[in-house]
Amino acid sequence: MRRAAGDERVVNLAGGLPAVAQFPRAALAKGFLRVLAARGSPGLQYGWPEGQPSLRARIADRLRQRAPAARLTADDVIITNGAQQAIALAVQLLARRGDRIAVEPACYPAALELFRDRGLDLIDLSDGQARARVTYVMPALGNPTGTALDRAARARLLARPGWIIEDDAYGDLTFDEVVPPLLAERRRRIVYVGTFSKTLCPGLRVGWIVVPPALRERALRLKQSEDLQAGSLAQSVVDDYLAHHDFDARLIAHRRYYLHRARRLARAIHHALPAFRFEFPHGGFCLWVETPEPVDEVALLHAAVAEGVCYDVGSAFQTDPARQALTRMRLCYSAEAPDRFDEGARRLARAWRRVQRQNCEQTTLLVEDR
Amino acid sequence: MRRAAGDERVVNLAGGLPAVAQFPRAALAKGFLRVLAARGSPGLQYGWPEGQPSLRARIADRLRQRAPAARLTADDVIITNGAQQAIALAVQLLARRGDRIAVEPACYPAALELFRDRGLDLIDLSDGQARARVTYVMPALGNPTGTALDRAARARLLARPGWIIEDDAYGDLTFDEVVPPLLAERRRRIVYVGTFSKTLCPGLRVGWIVVPPALRERALRLKQSEDLQAGSLAQSVVDDYLAHHDFDARLIAHRRYYLHRARRLARAIHHALPAFRFEFPHGGFCLWVETPEPVDEVALLHAAVAEGVCYDVGSAFQTDPARQALTRMRLCYSAEAPDRFDEGARRLARAWRRVQRQNCEQTTLLVEDR
Repeated sequence: MRRAAGDERVVNLAGGLPAVAQFPRAALAKGFLRVLAARGSPGLQYGWPEGQPSLRARIADRLRQRAPAARLTADDVIITNGAQQAIALAVQLLARRGDRIAVEPACYPAALELFRDRGLDLIDLSDGQARARVTYVMPALGNPTGTALDRAARARLLARPGWIIEDDAYGDLTFDEVVPPLLAERRRRIVYVGTFSKTLCPGLRVGWIVVPPALRERALRLKQSEDLQAGSLAQSVVDDYLAHHDFDARLIAHRRYYLHRARRLARAIHHALPAFRFEFPHGGFCLWVETPEPVDEVALLHAAVAEGVCYDVGSAFQTDPARQALTRMRLCYSAEAPDRFDEGARRLARAWRRVQRQNCEQTTLLVEDR
Repeated sequence: MRRAAGDERVVNLAGGLPAVAQFPRAALAKGFLRVLAARGSPGLQYGWPEGQPSLRARIADRLRQRAPAARLTADDVIITNGAQQAIALAVQLLARRGDRIAVEPACYPAALELFRDRGLDLIDLSDGQARARVTYVMPALGNPTGTALDRAARARLLARPGWIIEDDAYGDLTFDEVVPPLLAERRRRIVYVGTFSKTLCPGLRVGWIVVPPALRERALRLKQSEDLQAGSLAQSVVDDYLAHHDFDARLIAHRRYYLHRARRLARAIHHALPAFRFEFPHGGFCLWVETPEPVDEVALLHAAVAEGVCYDVGSAFQTDPARQALTRMRLCYSAEAPDRFDEGARRLARAWRRVQRQNCEQTTLLVEDR
């Protein structure tokens, strides 16, 4: 996969990366020079564990627009080294080895790995009976599903006891309606995770966490123990960007940009692989695709890479891949050049036919064996 | 303390910050523009969990110069979000809740907090009998002590069983002789921690960890779970800096710069507080000072802040402050303007006399009571 991802001949539909073309390089260059010129160089010096006050205030302002009821201020926001660290801190705050954590049937893989590493017992959120100490969920827009929780699912989720980790990494990137975060409804039970990785640049590693007021002191202490603070330079650069640009206009442009890409990849897949099924996403960076019949996903990926296309295998997103009846894959339209989507889909179709043929032959052999 | 640190009227001898004047702002500005112009914008995009290959190769090269026997390559280096995250990863790799960790009698406070947070049992390294699963030590230059382990102590340390976390944060900032890291001598038992925070800029948050080959895969997995990766932008900027400048010349200039400051602060303290004792440091950023008689350290700090000087109280560096017979303090010469050292020392002397007088009065009252 790594080799394939680094090979320019391969059509790369893996990884969930934002488009390089969307990085505001000229604006960041100007911002960086301003940051360097600032008195006392706060962008280069140590800072406090919670992060820079001005950036935290801007994040709180933005969150207040989407969730006025939560009444957030800068004091509620702790800057983290991206959303992943916010999730890691949330887990450290809320759960211990052996605790149960409920997740959606298709879930962000780095969160799954983290939960496994921390010795948590993963259970399926769709099993309404099972109790869990913590639920991890992406209510506004799931990765990889590209769908929001519907009203009924939100209500069921809020009715469950226990803590909720609300990962809102794609909350600003829904194509139509902006979905209000759960945070607004249950401030005291929700640890909220946000990031600029999808909307600005992931390489800055600027995310944030909002914890219930009762947990703030412990969260800060943990953050300090983990790595003292998020990068000062990156925080200053993001703060400067927000101060000098209309971020909402950027988001509107982003949604249009990624919607266009989603349509192109969806069309390419429909055309080359009409039997593949997926729901058109409500936002985000990917299609969550299901093959018409189950095959060995490793064999399919190998065949795909041999044909010159790569993507993320479905099992990485599933708590219990062995129980899955169908083979799934995440196809990202966010980073690859859209004029390569048709070629990527054709390569995937060739790989699919090859693996299907092998499947057939094996089945025939099995039948003959009997 | 926070208020005092933000108040420019206060002479600030706390915090262990590098001097802002030493941040190479013009060089970083040029480097940033080069980083932004790079094809594919690796400085803004996601990267791999271990960090950027070129930066890791440069760090390995530098370490090979100091420790040829360890035969390090880029593959051995994982970039972290500063040294603190490297220590946190080391602890996660090597120890579990309830395990014993041995530390020097005066130890870096954020490491102590981390060890306490992780439920480790702190023991004193100077207690030669006590066994520990892990030993955390700064062999080249201790913070706050400013001294290196002598030959006998190094030998004793290496003779102890168990893992060693070698924190080499100040290893490049010894005034005279550069001390070879322990890593060279026991590659398989040592987790090595390094950083550019003291020698370039802490706000970049670029540190690294070198783990024994057998632990590398698990270390990488942990790093990915914690926060995916260190900041791409910061890594690219450091890599660019190392590519375009003579870092060894920078270190030589740094040593001279901080030695000069150390001498000025030492002179100021000797002059204003001749009864205060300390060893002149072998490098680093601070003096580790002992008062001639024990006093209430909180009262002394309050008096000092009231007089307009602040510093770090000794108990923050000690595993068991209650057992300490003397009052200690860390006085940093690294960040404050040297022409304020005399005034800072005079203020500290006034605070000292005030607290000493109170001490006296209390003792008198106690005696009269009997």
